[in-house]
Amino acid sequence: MINITSISFLGPKGTFTHEAANILGDDLIPYCTIPAVMESVANNETEFGVVPIENSIEGPVGITLDSLAHKFDLKIYKEIIIPINQNLIVNPGCKLEDIEDVYSHSQAIAQCQEFINRNRIQPHYAVSTANAAKNIVGDKSKAAIGNRKAAELYGLEILEANIQDTDNNETRFVVVSNEAHEPTGKDKTSIIFSIYEDRPGGLYNILGIFQKNNINLTKIESRPSKKGLGKYLFFVDFNGHINDEIIKNILNEIEENTYFLKVLGSFPEF
Amino acid sequence: MINITSISFLGPKGTFTHEAANILGDDLIPYCTIPAVMESVANNETEFGVVPIENSIEGPVGITLDSLAHKFDLKIYKEIIIPINQNLIVNPGCKLEDIEDVYSHSQAIAQCQEFINRNRIQPHYAVSTANAAKNIVGDKSKAAIGNRKAAELYGLEILEANIQDTDNNETRFVVVSNEAHEPTGKDKTSIIFSIYEDRPGGLYNILGIFQKNNINLTKIESRPSKKGLGKYLFFVDFNGHINDEIIKNILNEIEENTYFLKVLGSFPEF
Repeated sequence: MINITSISFLGPKGTFTHEAANILGDDLIPYCTIPAVMESVANNETEFGVVPIENSIEGPVGITLDSLAHKFDLKIYKEIIIPINQNLIVNPGCKLEDIEDVYSHSQAIAQCQEFINRNRIQPHYAVSTANAAKNIVGDKSKAAIGNRKAAELYGLEILEANIQDTDNNETRFVVVSNEAHEPTGKDKTSIIFSIYEDRPGGLYNILGIFQKNNINLTKIESRPSKKGLGKYLFFVDFNGHINDEIIKNILNEIEENTYFLKVLGSFPEF
Repeated sequence: MINITSISFLGPKGTFTHEAANILGDDLIPYCTIPAVMESVANNETEFGVVPIENSIEGPVGITLDSLAHKFDLKIYKEIIIPINQNLIVNPGCKLEDIEDVYSHSQAIAQCQEFINRNRIQPHYAVSTANAAKNIVGDKSKAAIGNRKAAELYGLEILEANIQDTDNNETRFVVVSNEAHEPTGKDKTSIIFSIYEDRPGGLYNILGIFQKNNINLTKIESRPSKKGLGKYLFFVDFNGHINDEIIKNILNEIEENTYFLKVLGSFPEF
């Protein structure tokens, strides 16, 4: 646990983000959107903020990447990875054949598509997994998809556990802060860059800088730069700390060859 | 227009996909999910299917990429790009100060975040922009976000036009088919590949094959391979047709150096 006073997280209570934030501490404050979590940290209302950044099945969380790139100057202080097990949550005593409609966050619905199709239940989107659980209370024709905590919170039961389509379902969360984490010896660094549109092979040349220095990329994601189709920001994670001499040199060389570079910070590998 | 009998599209009527499909022809059949559109083509119920593949602001449509990669063996026959203008749709006579809640597809909500915040309206997700319009009929405290067609279809009015946060908002749709498109002299080719996890510089080496042949990439997207965090499929579009000698050679070299390669076809540039 980090020795701190307060941590904001993407609420409401009972979401997977709540589960991840619980690993850090107990003084947790829910905020209703991802930008609101980041803003609470930027304004020093809270010291750390926990938001999801990518799921191994559904991919990146666009609003987190966009907020880090365009809206806030926050550091990634830590990463947390937790396995995602989705459950069919129902009112006590309810059976599978009673269920006509199922509610959840769109990512959870997408993760359980085969289960939903097989059981011929009508899917509906909700703002969060916890919100879906809250909204089905008292209606036996409705179910929600979410975690054990959401079921407990609203006096509901888990009718079927682990209903996600594929294993290897895990979500990576980032803890954002105004402070950088000190080096631990086993760190990762996150950067965002965009390449010059008019120079062919732009991405190839940047990847070459890592290659010739024998630095492994642990992640590469493209996101629209919001300047038109085919124009991207690249989110890259790699091994090493920004205080390392070799990483400093790499970042200098990248800066000379990109249109935009933002260093999101170095943090211990989870 | 393509001279054909039937085209499936991601419905319901009044969505942006409906608008894109209308460019191809008039015999249009709505299906309620992206995989259902593709399945109708795979089963020869319809000859072409129209689905969104990426938006310039919100990024890729995950379910389209995943369905092309994992579920269907369809060709991309054509691409269609249309500008996305979002409008605040209300019941006739309704004013901005009456509106408490706004409904739309999650991507449309994300595209109009600043407008929603500025006017202190509570956002709610709906299954589609057209569905949102349908659901607000008769309730003056509710608005929807969508296109002009959706407003017309349900006897609603546009209270404010072009409420999206940023310009450059356009969506690329693909027309899928069992048939390949013949070369036109100005074509693009779409492929999906995954690299060997245990070989460093995998992506760098693949991009180098394009670089040394002077072939421009027009798109590069990473998607989770669903095998765990940090393992990706890459969706790449580039100039040229699979019948070109140079493109054949490039694809052979990529095949030798990747774990998985799927050619989604060549189609005329929009």
